[in-house]
Amino acid sequence: MGSGQSSSVVGKANMSRCEPVTGNLPPLKDLTADNITENVIRINNQSKSPRARFVFERLVTHLHDFAREVQLSEQEWSTSVEFLTKIGQMSTDTRHEMILLSDTLGLSMLLDSINHPKSASSTEGTVLGPFHTHDAIDLDHGAVLHKDPHATPLLVLCDVKDPQGNPISGVKIDVWEGDSHGFYDVQREDRSGPDGRGVLHSDSDGRFFFKAIVPVPYPIPSDGPVGAMLRLLGRHVNRPSHIHFMMHKEGWDPLTTALYPRGDPYEASDAVFGVKESLVVDFTEVSDPEMAARYDVALGTKLLQYNFVLLSMEEAAALKRKNAIKNMEKYGGKKMSFLDGLPVPDLD
Amino acid sequence: MGSGQSSSVVGKANMSRCEPVTGNLPPLKDLTADNITENVIRINNQSKSPRARFVFERLVTHLHDFAREVQLSEQEWSTSVEFLTKIGQMSTDTRHEMILLSDTLGLSMLLDSINHPKSASSTEGTVLGPFHTHDAIDLDHGAVLHKDPHATPLLVLCDVKDPQGNPISGVKIDVWEGDSHGFYDVQREDRSGPDGRGVLHSDSDGRFFFKAIVPVPYPIPSDGPVGAMLRLLGRHVNRPSHIHFMMHKEGWDPLTTALYPRGDPYEASDAVFGVKESLVVDFTEVSDPEMAARYDVALGTKLLQYNFVLLSMEEAAALKRKNAIKNMEKYGGKKMSFLDGLPVPDLD
Repeated sequence: MGSGQSSSVVGKANMSRCEPVTGNLPPLKDLTADNITENVIRINNQSKSPRARFVFERLVTHLHDFAREVQLSEQEWSTSVEFLTKIGQMSTDTRHEMILLSDTLGLSMLLDSINHPKSASSTEGTVLGPFHTHDAIDLDHGAVLHKDPHATPLLVLCDVKDPQGNPISGVKIDVWEGDSHGFYDVQREDRSGPDGRGVLHSDSDGRFFFKAIVPVPYPIPSDGPVGAMLRLLGRHVNRPSHIHFMMHKEGWDPLTTALYPRGDPYEASDAVFGVKESLVVDFTEVSDPEMAARYDVALGTKLLQYNFVLLSMEEAAALKRKNAIKNMEKYGGKKMSFLDGLPVPDLD
Repeated sequence: MGSGQSSSVVGKANMSRCEPVTGNLPPLKDLTADNITENVIRINNQSKSPRARFVFERLVTHLHDFAREVQLSEQEWSTSVEFLTKIGQMSTDTRHEMILLSDTLGLSMLLDSINHPKSASSTEGTVLGPFHTHDAIDLDHGAVLHKDPHATPLLVLCDVKDPQGNPISGVKIDVWEGDSHGFYDVQREDRSGPDGRGVLHSDSDGRFFFKAIVPVPYPIPSDGPVGAMLRLLGRHVNRPSHIHFMMHKEGWDPLTTALYPRGDPYEASDAVFGVKESLVVDFTEVSDPEMAARYDVALGTKLLQYNFVLLSMEEAAALKRKNAIKNMEKYGGKKMSFLDGLPVPDLD
């Protein structure tokens, strides 16, 4: 290599495509396994958002520590790049492979636990799962959720209350479940519209009811990258039978949950870690002729009854903040402030 | 909720779609922010591959710790799910958005450093980048790499040697670079085949040479999710000018690297952290008429000369293993074995 003239000519031709360098950047050169992490964090710290600075500082730290700890190989890296790329390419409006990845790695349940901390009295949450859609139609109380003629009918009678036992009216309740073969409508190629899903609103007594079917266990979609991952890990891909509920009303902490009939073979080995004892229910039967007449079902119809309890936004926020503070003490104990309810480290 | 009959009927209808539960599973129920991580790791530990068990143990630990430390919100989670999904959906054979993410988070450079540790004498590696293709054609020595008529020609004269200075012949060398506007061929919609790239083989003296163009700085593709991320972080998206080289020969540690002309405005702020002082070069000019005639270039043509040094597979493996052991001492000091050259924790 000669020395010759400085190559200041280099780059001139194309500066118009490039933005000028601004800010007080660290010199990013000669980075090694020992110093690259701090330098990537320093350049990311140019963000104007304190929350983005914090999230990316922890993200880069964990990503790099992971790679260093396992001494990630190039082959493993390119398998991972391909794996994540395929997950995106496989995803559509009705197939949510990335959510499935989050679910099967336990991240979704962890986030539910962080974002909707359990109080002594409120209903626990669980995974949203990849099968919720936004095209479910409004149903009247007592409506039939499912067209499936092979299923066992199930009358669902519920109410929604606050922790003090006061009914909450006007709660928007999304319900959805698979059919008698364990398939959601979105898994059928000939889907022409929503089936096995609907939207109800609690009445003035906080009540809502509809005619569902007895749910069955089913394998999560395993023909994609997530299925391949679970096979590598020696894990089964099954979820215990359940019915999904999602509740929204302004002023109340949104609840995404599901109810699981007791005795399912996968009750204690859910592929997405969603089962909680408080959400496991015992089905009974409609044994009272007056009740059968009132709800227009046959005597002996399977019956699911459940009382949901929502926290107010204020109650939930206070609980979440308390947990966040406890959590920060566990992780290094940096002094934190809250910005829009989310922790950011204090600058001093 | 009544008690009634056990719902053992539940699930029967559909057991055929589900695999039976095998193995000695931990009961995965009532998982909370405090115990979900250990339980996800326990179920992943059913994998027959010791390396997969180790990699997923660290992956799940870091993923969960990250979520707990920042108290990741549901909004941030769904933005992340969307972000990663879009990256996959945007990716094609010629657009590698996931590699760009790895590059801009410093992961690619870190992995290069882990997998190709620098010895005192060997050429350092750098990012592969998202613009390598597999369709480049074989070129004769002296071939013209680029059809671009607006570019400044550059004669590239190199050789490949071992650390003792012995030439290595028959090394397959992929070279690629952008055009005078900083675009690679794959970024052109009318691309009909490879341009600005080719494959050479070192001769019996370890030499190879070709006619390139003076490279210019360019912005990495910023119309996708990675561009949006960099804007959020307040980072510029530019790479200093460079020419890529990738070298393969059986028995030798593969080298992916690039050469950067000195004085580029982005030399110390590369968006993907790729610049190393040992890879920064000074261009000269062809000033000897005999040389100009020999290489069939005009007097005064820009000239890049560089001596690449490859490590043998054995030298590289020994260095890598030494670094891995040093690294393990830093991370908890668990006793490790090596499996196909990659660390796994000892079982006892």
